[in-house]
Amino acid sequence: MEFQALSKEELLQLKGELEQQFKEAREKNLKLDMSRGKPSPAQLDMCMGLMDALNSKTPLYASDGTDCRNYGILDGLPESKQMMAEIMEVSPNKVVVLGNASLPIMYDTISRAMTHGVCGSTPWCKLQKVKFLCPVPGYDRHFAITEHFGIEMINVPMTLEGPDMDMVEKLVNSDPSVKGIWCVPKYSNPQGISYSDEVVRRFANLKPAAKGFRIYWDNAYAVHHLYEDKQDHILNIIDECEKAGNPDMVFMFASTSKISFSGSGIAAVAASEKNLDWMRSSLTLQTIGYDKINQLRHVKYFKNLEGIKAHMKKHADIMRPKFEAVLDILEKNLGGLGIGSWIRPHGGYFISFEAMEGCAKATVEKCKEAGITLTGAGATYPYKKDPADSNIRIAPSFPSPEEMAAAAEIFTLCVKLVSVEKLLAAK
Amino acid sequence: MEFQALSKEELLQLKGELEQQFKEAREKNLKLDMSRGKPSPAQLDMCMGLMDALNSKTPLYASDGTDCRNYGILDGLPESKQMMAEIMEVSPNKVVVLGNASLPIMYDTISRAMTHGVCGSTPWCKLQKVKFLCPVPGYDRHFAITEHFGIEMINVPMTLEGPDMDMVEKLVNSDPSVKGIWCVPKYSNPQGISYSDEVVRRFANLKPAAKGFRIYWDNAYAVHHLYEDKQDHILNIIDECEKAGNPDMVFMFASTSKISFSGSGIAAVAASEKNLDWMRSSLTLQTIGYDKINQLRHVKYFKNLEGIKAHMKKHADIMRPKFEAVLDILEKNLGGLGIGSWIRPHGGYFISFEAMEGCAKATVEKCKEAGITLTGAGATYPYKKDPADSNIRIAPSFPSPEEMAAAAEIFTLCVKLVSVEKLLAAK
Repeated sequence: MEFQALSKEELLQLKGELEQQFKEAREKNLKLDMSRGKPSPAQLDMCMGLMDALNSKTPLYASDGTDCRNYGILDGLPESKQMMAEIMEVSPNKVVVLGNASLPIMYDTISRAMTHGVCGSTPWCKLQKVKFLCPVPGYDRHFAITEHFGIEMINVPMTLEGPDMDMVEKLVNSDPSVKGIWCVPKYSNPQGISYSDEVVRRFANLKPAAKGFRIYWDNAYAVHHLYEDKQDHILNIIDECEKAGNPDMVFMFASTSKISFSGSGIAAVAASEKNLDWMRSSLTLQTIGYDKINQLRHVKYFKNLEGIKAHMKKHADIMRPKFEAVLDILEKNLGGLGIGSWIRPHGGYFISFEAMEGCAKATVEKCKEAGITLTGAGATYPYKKDPADSNIRIAPSFPSPEEMAAAAEIFTLCVKLVSVEKLLAAK
Repeated sequence: MEFQALSKEELLQLKGELEQQFKEAREKNLKLDMSRGKPSPAQLDMCMGLMDALNSKTPLYASDGTDCRNYGILDGLPESKQMMAEIMEVSPNKVVVLGNASLPIMYDTISRAMTHGVCGSTPWCKLQKVKFLCPVPGYDRHFAITEHFGIEMINVPMTLEGPDMDMVEKLVNSDPSVKGIWCVPKYSNPQGISYSDEVVRRFANLKPAAKGFRIYWDNAYAVHHLYEDKQDHILNIIDECEKAGNPDMVFMFASTSKISFSGSGIAAVAASEKNLDWMRSSLTLQTIGYDKINQLRHVKYFKNLEGIKAHMKKHADIMRPKFEAVLDILEKNLGGLGIGSWIRPHGGYFISFEAMEGCAKATVEKCKEAGITLTGAGATYPYKKDPADSNIRIAPSFPSPEEMAAAAEIFTLCVKLVSVEKLLAAK
């Protein structure tokens, strides 16, 4: 029965029962963490073979003869471009392979635009106002970068198909201060939503009012499926932009951070020749080259997309039970109560929970009292401000399925308790 | 006999002889490169053991328990801080260890100052004018970074003790637009000069007119000696700045790029707590952490400063004959002729040749005709403009001693020929 339909007396009685349960839960003195969006040790153990991919007897030369031990090669070994191109579903000549993770590349791309503009546009630091569109809920680190540079962020609500494209089109096509939009198009952070074909095509057909407008397409979870038989596929934005006559409108980012070792992987950008030339003209001053030995190590170990896929299947086998533990408990404990909603993602790293308006902070706080750490409420919004105070990000990857189940039981209890309190306050 | 003292007739006769020698040299169809300031394959071969430092059986945990395979740790593992601190002669709490080379860190430091100022100063991009002092001849990549950001560069002549400190003091202490100075204080690029104690102390005692003025102290060749018995030692600028009441005035940079593998090493910054906090506040947005596995690999292999020193002795054994091959031929062929000067460095990667005024470009061009590639004349100056057109950088590290000797013979021949032509033109 929906909580909304309960009378004050029923709510009061329920509150009493829930408080008793909460008291018992607290007494267990649990210490569980649902906030860490990082691989578990079991996932990392699976990749230890990477450390044997090269040894002192391995000739450390690339396919083009490059001595990977020395200076040289600005934008990636041919074979690492090939491998990343396969992951990103583009041709290798549209790819540059860079450092240990994609976040620094995104940061650099924004920083470069601040000081030098984008492909000839006015440096953003010389402009009165620069705005970015931010699909919400979204990735906190994207928002932190744009905030750091004083870029005004505008929330764009997510739908089950991707960002609200009516709003995106209206803002991008009319406002010359809108210089970019952050996107996690596949298994989005935190909702696990993959953009529909129509959304991708509408992106590709934007007619930006701003010079140098770009879509910052963070394809972080390109191969991060949870299921063999239920895998999302998104249209390739670079192809679609080309078809639409907007070949330069997108930077696509990807990395092996959650494929091999987080922070010791390799990262890549895919974009048009013009965009990459612009990037290279600055990279050549910025670096004497990225870590080619680590690029070689990754290619020797994974070989190609098939190798990556086989490896990601093992990741899925570890991740899936954790996701399902949480999702099953959400369904069991909250299904039909009308006090929260969530999506069953087919991949990615998160579950997004939408509480009743005004209940997120209180729920996170309540969980903390019972020893359950959640990502701070608001983290999924620009400026850490969730206007509805309703979104909570759950990260199932790090603890065990049993720990996740225990944590989810308490989480759902807290959701119920906070919701009852909220409903009572309105009576 | 000095060329200057020769009569026109003597010069003409000499010119004829030199042209004949040059003709013969050309006919050898040599193809030698004295421009590449990078380690030779033999040096890299010595370090292949680094690839065995970690394997799939090695627990990839740091001394503080950090799982190096996962996210976490912004500013370096404790043990990598310790090792880099020993190289940089500072305490580990003054060190952050970052990515694969120091150039990107220097670039980032300037880029960050452009967009955010330095420790609270006005962002440089908001200022009418920002100037940097550039000791000349100097490192082309330093100058390329400042040029990229539109920073005006002012040449400061090098003396045998370091930069002309009268000029440095005058400019730094009076001009609030002078925001920094590039220094390679030990075995400077390209001259191999190490700053005297007095120079270091005068640096530490600067009274900058500019808020946020910093010395960018690129200690690239801290342990890159050529001799066991002739090793330069410089005062520690961080200690001296502290003593002088200027603890925040310097950023020191170092890396293992020419110790282990170029571009696959680890890099570090040393600075005051205030400077490092400022840097960390931006780093935390910029990265999810640098490559900790590579940090661990380096510490497991080199262990400590003693390990580094033992390894650098092997580098010296390879480098020394190449330097001496060039220096001996310079002495043999040009000694006493008054048409060029050079310094015998005790370490570093370069030999700097000072030709007669107006002769550098022509000499480089002449060498090219005979198959010898030199770094472009002017490369050692801001904007690639050597006002006297006299400095030529020689990089002995990459070819064999025999190749360096053959190249040096032709180089000295070209110096003589161009000098004679110059002297004749003035008659």
